[in-house]
Amino acid sequence: MFLKCESLQRMGAFKFRGAFNTIAQIPAETRRRGVVAFSSGNHAQAVALVARMHGVPAVIVMPSTAPPAKLDATRGYGAEVVFYDRAGEDRDAMALRLARERGLTLIPPFDHPDIVAGQGTAALELFEETGPLDALLVPCGGGGLLSGSAIAAQVMAPTCRVIGVEPEAGDDGNRSFASGRLERVEHADTIADGARTPSLGPLTFAVIRRHVSAMTVASDAELIAAMRFVWERMKLIVEPTGVLGLAALMAGRVHLRGRRVGVILSGGNVDLTRVREWMAG
Amino acid sequence: MFLKCESLQRMGAFKFRGAFNTIAQIPAETRRRGVVAFSSGNHAQAVALVARMHGVPAVIVMPSTAPPAKLDATRGYGAEVVFYDRAGEDRDAMALRLARERGLTLIPPFDHPDIVAGQGTAALELFEETGPLDALLVPCGGGGLLSGSAIAAQVMAPTCRVIGVEPEAGDDGNRSFASGRLERVEHADTIADGARTPSLGPLTFAVIRRHVSAMTVASDAELIAAMRFVWERMKLIVEPTGVLGLAALMAGRVHLRGRRVGVILSGGNVDLTRVREWMAG
Repeated sequence: MFLKCESLQRMGAFKFRGAFNTIAQIPAETRRRGVVAFSSGNHAQAVALVARMHGVPAVIVMPSTAPPAKLDATRGYGAEVVFYDRAGEDRDAMALRLARERGLTLIPPFDHPDIVAGQGTAALELFEETGPLDALLVPCGGGGLLSGSAIAAQVMAPTCRVIGVEPEAGDDGNRSFASGRLERVEHADTIADGARTPSLGPLTFAVIRRHVSAMTVASDAELIAAMRFVWERMKLIVEPTGVLGLAALMAGRVHLRGRRVGVILSGGNVDLTRVREWMAG
Repeated sequence: MFLKCESLQRMGAFKFRGAFNTIAQIPAETRRRGVVAFSSGNHAQAVALVARMHGVPAVIVMPSTAPPAKLDATRGYGAEVVFYDRAGEDRDAMALRLARERGLTLIPPFDHPDIVAGQGTAALELFEETGPLDALLVPCGGGGLLSGSAIAAQVMAPTCRVIGVEPEAGDDGNRSFASGRLERVEHADTIADGARTPSLGPLTFAVIRRHVSAMTVASDAELIAAMRFVWERMKLIVEPTGVLGLAALMAGRVHLRGRRVGVILSGGNVDLTRVREWMAG
């Protein structure tokens, strides 16, 4: 089994890849005016960091209920944080208005070719190191990492089965994959906060339908068991969303004994105050 | 700054190195009868694992009050655990008796040339990767890692200042270094459980006096701050003892700004149930 540790990526998650690729493609004149994103998670920090690396302003739209740690991290990378009130204007509309008023470029969280291409470089690098694999397990939220990984596999290891893994409580991608229609699961109750996205996007879904072999899920209990294993035995901090692939494997949701399997550990940004809750007992 | 992450070493700490080197030097006929060690910490797990790798029995003498997690880990590597009662026979006497009765070879925790030589390979590998360094910060308990590192520095980087770091509450090595006599600090009250050793050994002290440039300390609060930094920002699990060197640097106990500095992160075996205590607030 080969783990691609995106927890050790800059800002602690694969999201850096898509943000970098997307922001680097913006014409310099346009980029100079700045970028905007809506996110309270790793995408926010990725956009903030990459904007700083390019010396351009970043505005991040966050819910007013975002945890202070995420706020601090995003501001720590130099971004301006603008709050939206869940009761009032919706965040997409707000981000679009900010983009228009200030000439900012909107950096979407997953459903964009440059984002997908950037995220796919994680799997690309893994295949470069490991050579052909029989299967690759990839966490799935909005599907940016999964669709990018599937495209990378097509080129680097065409016989590799690419399997997307979602939290059990937020299995919209599994449902969409089964029905052939874009299904939604709102407000998924799971500790995998990076995969609570209510649905795939039209682009990521199209790529996933075409190039992904199967979808599966992992329960929160399975995520905790996998996370605990990685923390205790591998000495690596990974976040709940990050162990989706490993959890599915350890829990026997997929059967790959004796196979060469790649697993993307997608991130390591954890609220350490929640550790006792996860690791007790 | 260059970190040597012995937290990622087999069984989670540098202790594997000394145990392996020592057990590998025992003549095969003698080794076949087995090995014995007294330890409730990383040395126990190291001896247990290395014995299993050589296919020979290991007996570990532990206090009857040892935490269940350490017991399980040591038994998990296939060792027999024998308890001593702190009130009765002392553990050294008990280990020696077991050695005599069963023909076992005693594997000392630090004060032995083969142990020192083994531990020193951590610094040796670091210098091989980094080339010359201006300073190297090394955690110090019984002094095996520190004395081995100092010998490695003599050969690989003769102008490198090697600095030993102890917990503030267990500063026997600092005292011995200053006075020129082997000083003791009993029952040091510190979270750095790998460095509560009451004193250096005659051998490690002789090497440290000759080849170590300076000794310093880090407080428990400084250890927690450094540990938190490594967990949160570097996504690596390190144990309190493991960050002694980094804590001394971050707390300004040593002044090495602008220098090429090596730091040995000596281990990552942590009781995760204590995390909230360390990381709260």
